[in-house]
Amino acid sequence: MNLLVCWNELQDQDVDLIRSKTGANVTVCENKEDSWALVEEAHVIFGFVSPEVLVKAKKCQWLQIPYAGVERILAAEWGNPQMVLTNGSGIFGPNIAEHVIGLLLAFNRGIHLARDFQSKRQWSWDVFYPFRELTGSTVGILGYGDIGQQVGKRLEGFDCNVIGFRRNPQGMEKYAQQVYSIDEFHSYAGMLDYLVCALPHTTQTVGFLNRHRLQKLPKHAVVINVGRGSLIPEADLLLALEEGWIQGAALDVTPQEPLPESSPLWAMENVIITPHNSGRTPFHRERAFHIFFENWEHFQIHGKPKRNVVDPKRGY
Amino acid sequence: MNLLVCWNELQDQDVDLIRSKTGANVTVCENKEDSWALVEEAHVIFGFVSPEVLVKAKKCQWLQIPYAGVERILAAEWGNPQMVLTNGSGIFGPNIAEHVIGLLLAFNRGIHLARDFQSKRQWSWDVFYPFRELTGSTVGILGYGDIGQQVGKRLEGFDCNVIGFRRNPQGMEKYAQQVYSIDEFHSYAGMLDYLVCALPHTTQTVGFLNRHRLQKLPKHAVVINVGRGSLIPEADLLLALEEGWIQGAALDVTPQEPLPESSPLWAMENVIITPHNSGRTPFHRERAFHIFFENWEHFQIHGKPKRNVVDPKRGY
Repeated sequence: MNLLVCWNELQDQDVDLIRSKTGANVTVCENKEDSWALVEEAHVIFGFVSPEVLVKAKKCQWLQIPYAGVERILAAEWGNPQMVLTNGSGIFGPNIAEHVIGLLLAFNRGIHLARDFQSKRQWSWDVFYPFRELTGSTVGILGYGDIGQQVGKRLEGFDCNVIGFRRNPQGMEKYAQQVYSIDEFHSYAGMLDYLVCALPHTTQTVGFLNRHRLQKLPKHAVVINVGRGSLIPEADLLLALEEGWIQGAALDVTPQEPLPESSPLWAMENVIITPHNSGRTPFHRERAFHIFFENWEHFQIHGKPKRNVVDPKRGY
Repeated sequence: MNLLVCWNELQDQDVDLIRSKTGANVTVCENKEDSWALVEEAHVIFGFVSPEVLVKAKKCQWLQIPYAGVERILAAEWGNPQMVLTNGSGIFGPNIAEHVIGLLLAFNRGIHLARDFQSKRQWSWDVFYPFRELTGSTVGILGYGDIGQQVGKRLEGFDCNVIGFRRNPQGMEKYAQQVYSIDEFHSYAGMLDYLVCALPHTTQTVGFLNRHRLQKLPKHAVVINVGRGSLIPEADLLLALEEGWIQGAALDVTPQEPLPESSPLWAMENVIITPHNSGRTPFHRERAFHIFFENWEHFQIHGKPKRNVVDPKRGY
């Protein structure tokens, strides 16, 4: 069994661990150029692989990626159309949830503006700012899967009314007072003090939070996006922020990434931008390995992985 | 009964409300100059009064201030040494707790650095930063009164091990796994991933978190101070940050306020500064009125207020 590992940041001891845990013939791919040849012999691939080389992966039965967003992999041509794709869903829940609450409270407490003053060595005690309280607020979470529920969990101490929205409510989601279908979003948008967006990029989600839906939010609402920037059309987002349809936005993802230097979003007073790094966590490798080894065990016995299997039709 | 109200930000309707709720002879003090004369006739004072004018307040039986820190009032000479002082403890718990969690998560997620890059219109995805997770951490809270417990409450969704420290543990504090006497701090300092400081300024707290105690914290610990800057001697704090005794600090209060332009704290990479504004909340007036009216009722019946009575000997 040939296992190709494509993950630059791994140490020798990590590869040794993979070797001993799997018993596979492990090859390590150092760069994209090598991967064109190496994927040809791989039965399983684990790591970050350039989507375009997958056309050569004719023998690959299973690809485990250590991150969540699969849109680029799904858009590529696969050498083996039967290849099973598993992703890193669940790895990033804790840190992305913390990023969300951090952005939200930074906005509420004006920590971004205090930082600007810090850079100028100015003690700006009496700056005008609409300080807000999260406690007791109604928080909508668009995309109430793993990340959304991790956010909901961390809101528990803030006595929030959490409303989850997801494609298929399961009736067993935790940490939310209600969970509705995304189709019902417009009926509840008007009661949201905050809207946290954690949706993947799929044909259904692209442009979903357009001007019509943004206009349904209260004027004091704050939008936090940690899913995909394609959710909110750029022109609509700018309009909402400029016209005061919403009070502000905190964005870890933007319509175009990297966000172009010319984007007006950079300089808007009511916008906080982080560079798509909500996924960064010191536990990335540890959690990815956990998923991969669990899947490897199942793959050995049943010929296929079990956890985080992506449905190409659904898109996540 | 002469009630003197000293609070510039109040509207006419607020004063009308005070008048109708108390039935007192209400005088409004517009500025410090007026207050020298006006305090002389006041039986009760509600609001922000300059400590030095209290020497003239010979008839004043009760002073209700709408904020927490009483050190300047206690240090002043009182015209009536029997005057009862009540403060605004409890008003700021929710917003200061949110400020604490906001600072802590901003530090963990590098939101302050992202903000610096935002100002330069730079998408800094691959910046080196030791992203951290709060979830599952041990958080020490120095000063486990109202604010401390409000912090503890908001940590519930983060599965933290919360250790409170206060002068007199009551055995009935909520949201903490353990509550110890402040005298025992040194025994537990070594297990704290975060140290939240919410202590008032008293003779016991000045300089408490000195170099000896800072050195007992783990090197990865982050110190958040929203109490009083006098808790940490400036030289010791600088040493701890420069020498890497701790990983960083988030300070809403500083040894000297406003923090002088020349302070090295402004420019340290591992320091976030907010200008003593954790107390800002849109609910300030509402909550202060609630305490004042509750105390007024008790004062009418029993001749003294009941809630938030400050013990001058204790200093809070």
